[in-house]
Amino acid sequence: MREAMANACVGDEQSDDDPTTLELCEQVAALLGFDAGVFMPSGTMCNLVGILALTRPGDEMICDRESHIYGTEAAGAAAIAGISIRAIDSPHGIFTAQQVADAVRQRTRTAPRTTLLSVEQTTNFSGGAIWPLKTLRAARDMARSFDMKCHLDGARLFNACAATGIAPAEYAAGWDSAWIDLSKGLGCPVGAVLCGDRDFVREAWQWKYRLGGAMRQSGVLAAAGIYALEHHLPLLAQDHQNTQTIWETLLTCGLFRFDPARPASNILRFTFASDSLDAGMFARQCLERGVRVRDIGGNYIRVTTHLDVTADDAATAANTMVEVARDLTRLSASS
Amino acid sequence: MREAMANACVGDEQSDDDPTTLELCEQVAALLGFDAGVFMPSGTMCNLVGILALTRPGDEMICDRESHIYGTEAAGAAAIAGISIRAIDSPHGIFTAQQVADAVRQRTRTAPRTTLLSVEQTTNFSGGAIWPLKTLRAARDMARSFDMKCHLDGARLFNACAATGIAPAEYAAGWDSAWIDLSKGLGCPVGAVLCGDRDFVREAWQWKYRLGGAMRQSGVLAAAGIYALEHHLPLLAQDHQNTQTIWETLLTCGLFRFDPARPASNILRFTFASDSLDAGMFARQCLERGVRVRDIGGNYIRVTTHLDVTADDAATAANTMVEVARDLTRLSASS
Amino acid sequence: MREAMANACVGDEQSDDDPTTLELCEQVAALLGFDAGVFMPSGTMCNLVGILALTRPGDEMICDRESHIYGTEAAGAAAIAGISIRAIDSPHGIFTAQQVADAVRQRTRTAPRTTLLSVEQTTNFSGGAIWPLKTLRAARDMARSFDMKCHLDGARLFNACAATGIAPAEYAAGWDSAWIDLSKGLGCPVGAVLCGDRDFVREAWQWKYRLGGAMRQSGVLAAAGIYALEHHLPLLAQDHQNTQTIWETLLTCGLFRFDPARPASNILRFTFASDSLDAGMFARQCLERGVRVRDIGGNYIRVTTHLDVTADDAATAANTMVEVARDLTRLSASS
Amino acid sequence: MREAMANACVGDEQSDDDPTTLELCEQVAALLGFDAGVFMPSGTMCNLVGILALTRPGDEMICDRESHIYGTEAAGAAAIAGISIRAIDSPHGIFTAQQVADAVRQRTRTAPRTTLLSVEQTTNFSGGAIWPLKTLRAARDMARSFDMKCHLDGARLFNACAATGIAPAEYAAGWDSAWIDLSKGLGCPVGAVLCGDRDFVREAWQWKYRLGGAMRQSGVLAAAGIYALEHHLPLLAQDHQNTQTIWETLLTCGLFRFDPARPASNILRFTFASDSLDAGMFARQCLERGVRVRDIGGNYIRVTTHLDVTADDAATAANTMVEVARDLTRLSASS
Repeated sequence: MREAMANACVGDEQSDDDPTTLELCEQVAALLGFDAGVFMPSGTMCNLVGILALTRPGDEMICDRESHIYGTEAAGAAAIAGISIRAIDSPHGIFTAQQVADAVRQRTRTAPRTTLLSVEQTTNFSGGAIWPLKTLRAARDMARSFDMKCHLDGARLFNACAATGIAPAEYAAGWDSAWIDLSKGLGCPVGAVLCGDRDFVREAWQWKYRLGGAMRQSGVLAAAGIYALEHHLPLLAQDHQNTQTIWETLLTCGLFRFDPARPASNILRFTFASDSLDAGMFARQCLERGVRVRDIGGNYIRVTTHLDVTADDAATAANTMVEVARDLTRLSASS
Repeated sequence: MREAMANACVGDEQSDDDPTTLELCEQVAALLGFDAGVFMPSGTMCNLVGILALTRPGDEMICDRESHIYGTEAAGAAAIAGISIRAIDSPHGIFTAQQVADAVRQRTRTAPRTTLLSVEQTTNFSGGAIWPLKTLRAARDMARSFDMKCHLDGARLFNACAATGIAPAEYAAGWDSAWIDLSKGLGCPVGAVLCGDRDFVREAWQWKYRLGGAMRQSGVLAAAGIYALEHHLPLLAQDHQNTQTIWETLLTCGLFRFDPARPASNILRFTFASDSLDAGMFARQCLERGVRVRDIGGNYIRVTTHLDVTADDAATAANTMVEVARDLTRLSASS
Repeated sequence: MREAMANACVGDEQSDDDPTTLELCEQVAALLGFDAGVFMPSGTMCNLVGILALTRPGDEMICDRESHIYGTEAAGAAAIAGISIRAIDSPHGIFTAQQVADAVRQRTRTAPRTTLLSVEQTTNFSGGAIWPLKTLRAARDMARSFDMKCHLDGARLFNACAATGIAPAEYAAGWDSAWIDLSKGLGCPVGAVLCGDRDFVREAWQWKYRLGGAMRQSGVLAAAGIYALEHHLPLLAQDHQNTQTIWETLLTCGLFRFDPARPASNILRFTFASDSLDAGMFARQCLERGVRVRDIGGNYIRVTTHLDVTADDAATAANTMVEVARDLTRLSASS
Repeated sequence: MREAMANACVGDEQSDDDPTTLELCEQVAALLGFDAGVFMPSGTMCNLVGILALTRPGDEMICDRESHIYGTEAAGAAAIAGISIRAIDSPHGIFTAQQVADAVRQRTRTAPRTTLLSVEQTTNFSGGAIWPLKTLRAARDMARSFDMKCHLDGARLFNACAATGIAPAEYAAGWDSAWIDLSKGLGCPVGAVLCGDRDFVREAWQWKYRLGGAMRQSGVLAAAGIYALEHHLPLLAQDHQNTQTIWETLLTCGLFRFDPARPASNILRFTFASDSLDAGMFARQCLERGVRVRDIGGNYIRVTTHLDVTADDAATAANTMVEVARDLTRLSASS
């Protein structure tokens, strides 16, 4: 990948003049079934620009209570787009069409205008669950019936595809905007691609520029993306296998409670069988023994596998986690 | 009141030069225990300016899921102040200190900054419930422990006081801002007063001006407020009595389900014993028979009493509601 | 007027239910030649809502360097509507179509989108000059040729009409929005009316509500407006006569420099023949002797006449100003 | 440089964990004399975040009429930071302390709050002029005397240093924020570094994240920056020499009018001796003959030299420009 980057043919992307960036955007747009795409420095900017291009200040967006766009983007939706959020409480980030309908406000002078639905595929902090195609479409269709726009946060869309065999374009069909991240499962250093129709991308470009996301010779980054689509995309299934491995090991020892009950993609979310274990402490102790897991609040831990984690790494990491849980349990029992 | 308005001594309030408006602001500030107050054209502007003066874009506010500031102010908090909202799900708009703590996000680069608590006393769309002083203080203290600011939406604060005998200043003690409405229970045509310390009011004034809320000879409106504080404040207890009357009549017929179980102030909220009754239809039929009630969503009806509703009016209205419910029940049974 | 207010028939304007407010809005819309109007607590809110309804964040508005909307509305256009301002430098607030054209930016990703023209008729801080109808139309047509929207700040539009005999609807024809103030020349305590087509007014209403400008029984204020349209409108010519009187007196003494050279409406703007005179000091000394004039920066004074200033008052005020200027000149000579 | 990028040691910059990015930020902060720095995807984001961290909505910024921050950042200051701009009209983007003082508004409820000064060193669209150190300090000190913050747009600061021998830290001393671009004269593909004190950088980081500017393994980009500071910084003087060469050639033929009269750094700005020549046409014809110059409005052309332009390239380009101007002159004479 570094070699591909070093040899990238570049130009000024601000003038639509960087051939490698243009090539990447076309590839992703084709994969997702959209007219066009725009390269972004981060997935957070994809979400923010998606909102900015699809709404007006005073609108309200429906999304899951645990979604990244609500809790982990520094309130950009409100601060920059002037958008209110109505959060749905769902099992694993997957909600029903009826929940969408219930969250839509009446159109009056006094209510926020409910105009946007945002869905994460897969559901990141909710444990990497995969929206069944039918459920996803039902939510989208319900939003459509209220004249709402639909935005698909596909940071891990390819993971859903790898797990189900469903094509990205099938998941993204009928959405106004969708994006994929290059720097997570795909292993690129920087970047994401936001797609939509031509009008959407034109508007998205102006917001990207206004936010300061327009770069210069971004071809050096886009080259990594093109490389990853060819070489790393097929490897996502291995991440899922590794997550299964970890889950199986953890399941056996009985010290963990999984939510969802089993991992569907490359994410494993759990808390502890014993109330005395603390997620923050657990994460710190794992890190000390070389395993990075994330305390995501509510005494939950999120474990993610990616390109640089081998099957052996996964097995070792799982064992470490079991050990840490055992040590902490012993410690708390003796105190 | 109209006479008081017609005889009001006025000046230009934009230059702090309207003696009647200054007098009203002083009176309300004294009642609520604050340094100073500012006259506003509406309660909605009191909430908006309170937020603007106490937060920065990207901050997050905690309030109840059913609160007016979240669902009935056209998303002004997000659109104008750039504030995200984290809504709490509570029985009747009254939540616990623990719920506040759970809603506060960790201070990271990526999370919205939870910096403001807003509470409604009484809880409007949640059925006019009254926060017990102890519960109110506990929520405030918990917010303080996270260095948050505290805003009291007192649109119906005087109703709480009339029902409990607790002074307004006792409820408002230790809050950064609080306001009361002149046009609801107090029966004035226009206006509300937002209070805080001197720095807060200085900042509030600039936002009031910026929003276009600075008027000229507002003394004609303020005169109504001064009149109402003297003559109408003592009459609030009668509104509560009238609401009790309505509730008792409705309770007897068995066709309604109350939530909360009984009214605490001048608001009664109910749905229907039978699923076949529709709140929208009920409200329309009541209106045709001369009784205005409000369909507030979720098949709930809100009934409010005020100055112009006599005990007889209340009795008549209650009977009309029972009749309408009976007719609709019969109708649905026969279809 | 107070009597008309005291007898006003009222309802809740938030529900479009206040008959007097509706009546006023219809009258003003008819006078200005628009479909509909919305009552506002201030002219500042008319300007702000006009911008909000006609633009999107990131747009740019062209207006005069000395206009109220740019320098005296607390940056609401930027703070609330997210609008950049490109200010034109003109003699008395009256600029040419060519200046409009020069101020429009190229449509690129990187430039602000120039989408709105705002003009003041008459020009307030620029000395109450009156846009000739032909010049006004040329500016509007040039803006139209760039697909821009056009907003007419008519705080003193009726003064232009009184001076020229041209109907308000003639000035306002072909503009997207226009408003008039009730509290300046017309002598009402509070209020202004913003007009446009039905879609504009629908959007304006939601912004009015969101900003906190929606009042309740605003009919008490609207009644004053209806009264003023009938009884005070014909009196504006007297204000102009009074301003002429003041100007003539001041001109004779040779201590003032007028800009514009002679008043066109009810506003007189001047500085001093001698550099040693200070506008701030002049304004304070006038006030001490019972005459209120305004130091508007750049060592300029603005004098405004209105309903409550009689011909005698004007003569007296003029003499006072001359005296003050003489005293200050003597003082500065002796120091 | 590509090799340095390919071998960069990386981590997740969002967790302050990318060693190469941290190293670059430290180097730049040291060069500019600040506590700390933050890596950004573009100079536009440096300007926007500088504003966001130093102001509040409703504030006003003073800058030059031709500055990039006003006319070429898609109105981000207004759209995202809610900031009004008061533009100064100056010869070549260099204004006096008195002009700053004149542009500051009185502190009233009704005026925008003038709280920020922004200066470009060198002045980009104004022709690459260099602020003399004394003039720069005078403007800064005047702003300070009004309690304003000071932001230095140093996109081409190193060019000023190369031309004058004055150290970057000397220019940046006493400013609240300053930034340098890596992708212009320094020849990196992507990036800029914004510096300030620790509190400023903490606040800047949250805005960077909120805007979507937080990347992942940005070390691949930062490595280019470190390389450029070592290897390309000394080459800037050559760009200046090349610009001189172009200017001399163009001067001789008499077809151009230069503004400023001679180039001070790597930028040359000119219009034409004959009114019949059109900048747009000139730019297009140059491009057809392999020379890219920019039509910057007002019939002006901006020519910039950079790393990839050799002395021979410069000579050739100059000749091409002369030819194009001659051809166009002939054409217009014959028509």
